Parts: sequence; structure tokens; C-alpha cells
Amino acid sequence: MRIAVIGAGAMGSIYGGHLSLHNQVFLIDTNQAIVDHINAEGLVIQENGADTVYHPTALTSTEGQAPMDLIILFVKSLFSRTALQANQGIIGPDTYLMTLQNGSGHEDILGKFVSQDHIIIGTTEDNGAVLAPGLVRRGGTGKTNIGMLTADSQNFLPRLKETLDACGFQGIIHENIQQLIWNKLFTNVSLSAVTGVLQVPMGFIAGNEHAWNITRQLIHEAVAVAHGLGLEADEAEITEKVRQTSLGSPEGVTSICADLKAGRKTEVDTISSSVVRAARKCGITAPTHEMIVELIHAMEDRQEAF
Amino acid sequence: MRIAVIGAGAMGSIYGGHLSLHNQVFLIDTNQAIVDHINAEGLVIQENGADTVYHPTALTSTEGQAPMDLIILFVKSLFSRTALQANQGIIGPDTYLMTLQNGSGHEDILGKFVSQDHIIIGTTEDNGAVLAPGLVRRGGTGKTNIGMLTADSQNFLPRLKETLDACGFQGIIHENIQQLIWNKLFTNVSLSAVTGVLQVPMGFIAGNEHAWNITRQLIHEAVAVAHGLGLEADEAEITEKVRQTSLGSPEGVTSICADLKAGRKTEVDTISSSVVRAARKCGITAPTHEMIVELIHAMEDRQEAF
Repeated sequence: MRIAVIGAGAMGSIYGGHLSLHNQVFLIDTNQAIVDHINAEGLVIQENGADTVYHPTALTSTEGQAPMDLIILFVKSLFSRTALQANQGIIGPDTYLMTLQNGSGHEDILGKFVSQDHIIIGTTEDNGAVLAPGLVRRGGTGKTNIGMLTADSQNFLPRLKETLDACGFQGIIHENIQQLIWNKLFTNVSLSAVTGVLQVPMGFIAGNEHAWNITRQLIHEAVAVAHGLGLEADEAEITEKVRQTSLGSPEGVTSICADLKAGRKTEVDTISSSVVRAARKCGITAPTHEMIVELIHAMEDRQEAF
Repeated sequence: MRIAVIGAGAMGSIYGGHLSLHNQVFLIDTNQAIVDHINAEGLVIQENGADTVYHPTALTSTEGQAPMDLIILFVKSLFSRTALQANQGIIGPDTYLMTLQNGSGHEDILGKFVSQDHIIIGTTEDNGAVLAPGLVRRGGTGKTNIGMLTADSQNFLPRLKETLDACGFQGIIHENIQQLIWNKLFTNVSLSAVTGVLQVPMGFIAGNEHAWNITRQLIHEAVAVAHGLGLEADEAEITEKVRQTSLGSPEGVTSICADLKAGRKTEVDTISSSVVRAARKCGITAPTHEMIVELIHAMEDRQEAF
């Protein structure tokens, strides 16, 4: 396959590097230094104690390139729209667009660029970290859950799974991928959002009565929205899972918390905001999520103001 | 009158000092150093460029004292209950209990100690600051708005107004004092609460889209609760007044914001929580206020945790 991976962060590099084993991969990033480094030295992935060098073609611009079979979006979600606009030339009528980004509702943006039956959404259990330009550590590995919101008219998902599996991933095709995305979303829109607003480590949430009250209310509203979407969601079970996540990583720092602390924009628009948008689609309200979204945006702006 | 003022902060000192001109005043505070200082040197109030020395009787304990005609509560509202419990001996069947504290709903606590027709609630437009033990500056002066939640069966309010007016205050009796308290409350439960949660000066609120959205939502819910209580509240007018307050004091720091910054407990339980409690009485919900209360309490606890 001709594959473009947009975003050469940790996850983009891990997917781009591994997929380049058996595919023609273009790794696209706006950072010229990273692109130059990868083209000169290759992309080094540390894994299981060994360094492996991969050779995807790194690019800052896809101008002049022919359309791809598959584009995987691995930028921070707040840059998704801009990244796709900048690379519209490689999106043809047969191009599939895949997101494994955190949060939910990415299909709303992807749908501006390809038809519904060419959108693949999903989650990845893999993780990693950038150690230096062109040097990435692959941490835990796990499932790459993929699915579509419509029928898979071209039977593309089995081909994609085969491609993933051949390159060191574990592709799993899901009939109801939205369910899986929401299963992961519940923790992000409750625990992660509250740690961000309060600027506390994960353990504070289950340990503090008031933080826990907010978290439970966020789960409560998100479960109602999930039901509105026709998804399954057991409130007691989700609440207990979130509590265990808090207790299990007391010193853990969520990305929303870290982003706010560092004065960066957060991904709240595809996390908590996706619950607010889904609620509106269902004709219900999620007032606590609305409030959390406004608070986090205000905190982002506050960082700029000081 | 025999008057006890509980709490020798700025406001307690100003009221206690002035009222001691024509009344027997006991100024009660748990701080032994302040009490000793006032008894030895008198209470000095700076006003209009001059220092005047007043001589209320300062006490740390009212044990053995006979009941008062009037007790004015000027402690921080979160200590109201404890302060009244500690001074129960001076509360007799004819004792009136008055609060001019910030926020609303103080009558719920006062009602545990005297009958409804012996509770006086109100607001003060006076302000001041403690400069040193026994030395207080009286800043702006204004109305002392007083009223009762029941009929004034003993015709006490006119007598109280006379007492206030004779001692340098401007007592105004209100038929509908709850209305007046809520007029002031709207700003506290919106602007003040949001500055606290975001830890920003007052000007940030009107200037930031997201902070302003939260503030407007808080006003919206509080107006609905006020209507539920049978009070008048014009949402557009209140919103504009709050906006002007934010714009008028861009560098102003609210007490909730300052308390949280300093790691102190806030008065949120008689500010935002009073809206939540009033909402429940009316059978309506105020979810954004509920959330703000939990957030502020979590922030109080966070200060302890770090």
C-alpha cells in the first residue's frame, strides 16, 4: 500500500516506521529538522532492548504526490483539520482516512475530506515516547482496534488488518467501533478532565470527596449520552473502573493536566467537547461537561494571559 | 442596648467600636492577643483622616455573661455555627441575632439558636481593613440594610435602626431583605466564584469568552432559583451589572480567589452553596453551581494535599 502517516510524534513514528517494512510509507511532519534527520539517518525505534532503523520517506509537504491508499492521522487532534487541509492533494476518491487519536468524534472532521465509507476510526493500545529527533521508544504494545461507521463496501478493513498484522501490530476489526471508542472515552472525559481542571495527579480523584463527586457526575452524564447514541454503558461498572484507574496510578499525570501545566492547548475539543456535541445530537444536555470544556479553554487562555 | 459583636476583624471592629459610643458592647474574638490589646489600649479606628479610640469590652469567652439584647455575627461564615455554639450562654429568649455576612442562607444556621422572629439578616456597604491588632481603618461607608424573614413582632427593627443611626451607621429597614441579599449574591456566585476557580483577577472574566460563558450560565441558573424563591431578577440587567463590575476592577481580587491562593478555606458554602440549597428548596436544579462548589472544595483540599 501507499500509506501516508501525518504527524511524526511517538505514535506516528511507530506506525510509520513499522508499516514501512512492507509498504511505501510517507511520514509527514511540519518540523523540517525531524524530516531531515529521518531522511538522512533513518528512523530509529527502540523496542525490546534493540534499536531498529526504518526508512519511511519523510516529507514536510506532500505537494506533487499522487493520492494515497491510506492516510493515518497522528497529529494532536486540535491540528487535524489544518493537517488534512495542507495535504489535500494526496486524498483521492479511493483514499481511506484513519484516525486512532484520543477522544471521539474525529469522524466529523474526517468527513469533510472523504466520504463516510472511507473513514476508519479506532483506538490503539500501543504507546511510546519520542527520545530525540528520529529516535522513538516503543513502550507497551497492544491491539489496534479499527472499524467503520458504515458498511465496509470495498472490504477494506480485512486488507488493512492484514497490513497491520504483517508489520508488527495486532489489528482487530470491530463491528461496533463507536462502542469501543466510548469505552475508552469515559475515563478521559471524567478522570482526565478533572485532573486537568484541578491540576492534580490521578490519585487525587478517587481520594478526594469533592473531586470524586465531579468525576461521578461527568460519568453519569456521559453514560446518558452513550445511551442516547444507542451504545451500551453500565454506569456502576464504568465508575468503578475509573476509580481503579485513579487508585492504580496515584502519581500519574494525564495529558490534559500536563498540557495545561505547560501552557499548551489541550485536546479537550475531541474529549469532553465530543460528549457535549453527541449530547446535542441526541437532544439531551450534559451541563457538567459543557462547564468543564469552558473551564479548560479558559485555563488555556489564562496561561497566555500570565 | 447590651450588644455582643462576635469576630473582631475589620467589620466586627468597626461595628463594635462605633456601637460602643451609646451601648454596652462586648467584642468577642478567640484571638487572645487582639482581645488583650483592645482592653489595654482601646480599639483605634482610622476614619476621615483621624484616629478615634473606642472602648468596647473585649472578651475571648462570654462564659458567665448574661444574655444580650443583640448579637451581631461577624466571623467568616464557615465559623458561624462554632462561634454561636461557643457563646450560647449569651443567647436568651429575647436575644436578637443579626448577620451582615457575605452570601445568603445564614438564617439556616442562626435558626438553630433563636426563633425565626429573632433573626435579622442584611448587608452592609461599609468596608474596612485591619491594619494591626486593635487598629482598623474604616474605608467606604454606606447603608446597613436590615430586615427579617417573618413579621417584626416586637417592633425591634426601628429600635435597631435608631441604634445604628445614632452610632454613625445608616440603617435601612427592608420589607423584602431577601431580595436585597440576592441582588448582591448574583455577583458573588458568578464573578467571584469563577475568579476563584480560575485563579484570575476580576477583569479576566468579561475579557475571556470561556470564563464569560461560565459566568453567564451561573447567572442564568441563579436567576431561575431567585424566581423560584419568588424574588425579582432580571437576567439581562444582572449580567450587564456583573460585566461592568469585571470591567470596572480589572485587577481586583475576590475573596474566594485570595482565600484559595493563600490556602485558606473559602466562604463558598454561604455563597455558591446557598444557591444550590435554595434550588433544592424550589425543586429545581443548579448543576453549574453544584459543580463550582465541588471544584472550590476540591481546590481547598488540594492546597492541603500539596
